Amino acid sequence: MTKINANFLKLPGSYLFSEIARRVNAFTEANPNCSLIRLGIGDVTLPLAPSVIAAMHEAVDEMGKKESFKGYGPEFGYDFLRQAILEHDYKARGVELEIDEIFISDGAKSDTGNIGDIFCTDNIVAVCDPVYPVYVDTNAMAGRAGDYINNKWSRLIYMPCVEENGFLPKIPEQVPDMIYLCFPNNPMGTVATREQLKVWVDYARDNGSVILFDSAYEAFISEPDIPHSIFEIEGAKECAIEFRSFSKTAGFTGTRCAYTVVPKALVRDGASLHALWARRQSTKFNGVSYIVQRGAAAVYTPDGQREIRENIQYYKENARVIREGLSAAGLKVYGGVNAPYIWCKTPNGTGSWDFFDRLLNEANVVTTPGAGFGPSGEGYIRLTAFGAAQATKQAVERIAAIL
Amino acid sequence: MTKINANFLKLPGSYLFSEIARRVNAFTEANPNCSLIRLGIGDVTLPLAPSVIAAMHEAVDEMGKKESFKGYGPEFGYDFLRQAILEHDYKARGVELEIDEIFISDGAKSDTGNIGDIFCTDNIVAVCDPVYPVYVDTNAMAGRAGDYINNKWSRLIYMPCVEENGFLPKIPEQVPDMIYLCFPNNPMGTVATREQLKVWVDYARDNGSVILFDSAYEAFISEPDIPHSIFEIEGAKECAIEFRSFSKTAGFTGTRCAYTVVPKALVRDGASLHALWARRQSTKFNGVSYIVQRGAAAVYTPDGQREIRENIQYYKENARVIREGLSAAGLKVYGGVNAPYIWCKTPNGTGSWDFFDRLLNEANVVTTPGAGFGPSGEGYIRLTAFGAAQATKQAVERIAAIL
Repeated sequence: MTKINANFLKLPGSYLFSEIARRVNAFTEANPNCSLIRLGIGDVTLPLAPSVIAAMHEAVDEMGKKESFKGYGPEFGYDFLRQAILEHDYKARGVELEIDEIFISDGAKSDTGNIGDIFCTDNIVAVCDPVYPVYVDTNAMAGRAGDYINNKWSRLIYMPCVEENGFLPKIPEQVPDMIYLCFPNNPMGTVATREQLKVWVDYARDNGSVILFDSAYEAFISEPDIPHSIFEIEGAKECAIEFRSFSKTAGFTGTRCAYTVVPKALVRDGASLHALWARRQSTKFNGVSYIVQRGAAAVYTPDGQREIRENIQYYKENARVIREGLSAAGLKVYGGVNAPYIWCKTPNGTGSWDFFDRLLNEANVVTTPGAGFGPSGEGYIRLTAFGAAQATKQAVERIAAIL
Repeated sequence: MTKINANFLKLPGSYLFSEIARRVNAFTEANPNCSLIRLGIGDVTLPLAPSVIAAMHEAVDEMGKKESFKGYGPEFGYDFLRQAILEHDYKARGVELEIDEIFISDGAKSDTGNIGDIFCTDNIVAVCDPVYPVYVDTNAMAGRAGDYINNKWSRLIYMPCVEENGFLPKIPEQVPDMIYLCFPNNPMGTVATREQLKVWVDYARDNGSVILFDSAYEAFISEPDIPHSIFEIEGAKECAIEFRSFSKTAGFTGTRCAYTVVPKALVRDGASLHALWARRQSTKFNGVSYIVQRGAAAVYTPDGQREIRENIQYYKENARVIREGLSAAGLKVYGGVNAPYIWCKTPNGTGSWDFFDRLLNEANVVTTPGAGFGPSGEGYIRLTAFGAAQATKQAVERIAAIL
């Protein structure tokens, strides 16, 4: 008799964004003429950059001609894309990598989930709290999280990120084997300085831990001294894996392209994690569409760079509007300077879901309740800067009006 | 201290196609002026169909305009593609499915590998021998295969597919929990009749096993009574998951699109495998590029159908040339009628790798040694029909000339 992976049954029934969708649908059914503004889910709204579009048209044409048709590509990505990443995202910031330390994939969500395959299911995992749910759920599926009791997983180390510590995790008491860090952070929009990251790198090296570093939002960093990559920190190649994505950088949420850097210097248990990930990907993955990789490479051309910077600037202006608008309306807000997310404290200790409901019903604005990201997210909501400028402005005015 | 997944270390060092590449490279370095013909790896060579190209151009344009831009798509695929699959691949063959039983993905390799996530690592797995290496390696990574001793995994059930049983697996003595079947078969090119598949469906239902059915090559079926889907067999929805791909059907090996059908009637351990797979995919995957899905949907238009049938006919003609040519040269050949693969017995009991080397060195034709697909593949080589027609003809002549 086939047995299932019983860890799946431990997952709480309702996924955060499904519950939001359920409440939003109930509202729109009851109020069909009401125009909602959605600042909940982190999805981009600006079209792909003209350079990306042109490159993809060209690639589609290549696929239609016998002499330029491409079958199976290199499993870890085409060198034209890996080389561009190497130079623009790393070398330009003083980080030396080898081209085959970069693995192209269809998404950072896939990679941050699939990376678990190469680790022992006994490892102790530490996550920030609040946190991007994928880190938690994929470890729960693998059996690393234990049991879900009172809104917490019994085997996970939660590192509370709260007002008192500036929303930055502290070194936990128990030593974790795998440490998920995300800067600029989702959902809180905070960043770590070079010195703050150095503490984690030193700690991971001293204890033989591995840092799983998600820098999907690095393009939103405004302040000059904030590291964009963990590999800007000395020693990180011996203790960290980095996840990056074109989703937010270049609006690829529906186009699908990302990459993961696994340095060859990263060795645990006597094994090269680079070799393990290469084996995992060559066995369970077959590369990203040639057309999409051509589009991603166009992001690194001079025109592509200019175009995506304009788009990011547009979103950052939205972030400023939300941050300043809500602040002027008397709310306490964090993030939004180096990140597309604004982390907003609910007024007078209102619960996350209660404030979410109030904003939905009275201001007709969709947000994300902080409690959905973990216990320490209670008392906050997340707003995203990816909406249209006009609608974002209006949303802020609507919220201010009901407070 | 981080521990790795030690199952990875049990995998044999050299992957089949890497070893082939190594030998081919050594040969071409030693013989730089020799023109090789490659009938080894199963990669297509004809360009994408004009309908697919047109649809992708249109989709690229949509992504470049604000009003038609697409961000995150539905995680399990757009309904325009799922509906087309439902009608053309299933309803037209008398199979009723619900649209949400179809999950769009980036490849059957990904899906046949990732499906393991939803099953217990204690399950006993049965595979055909010889077999597509991905089924074996992904189960080895998950710990279901035991240890690799004398070219065999200790916990796997091998079902020999040899001349004596017409290259069709027999019901094993020990009852497996998970049974991988692939028809039309890779590497042997054989098919199963309705009656033969019915035996497996009945067996799986009686024993509570799950059949993982790979029908990536169904478009190559020529004979009218051969089932294209396991769901054409009564009761299969209660015991089978089916994997399909656009790779060989429509030349998508470098474009990346596939789908997996998990029926809602499939329940094991009291859990719906449909719900488990939905949870797996929504947590570890974020859908396929909109542009690629538009391309895949164009395969189902009347023009698209005509165009891909012409391409498949081209490859089938290659299969006929190989089959008849090698047969006339005195070799014993199988497959190639309902499949793009020809399974060829080596002459006078020559070893697989020896015959591979002889064909490489003397005929300058690259094949795949059968032993690379499992112990029972020893004494065979696989040839693929995906080459250019002219080169395929020439390869057959070259082989005939050295025998």
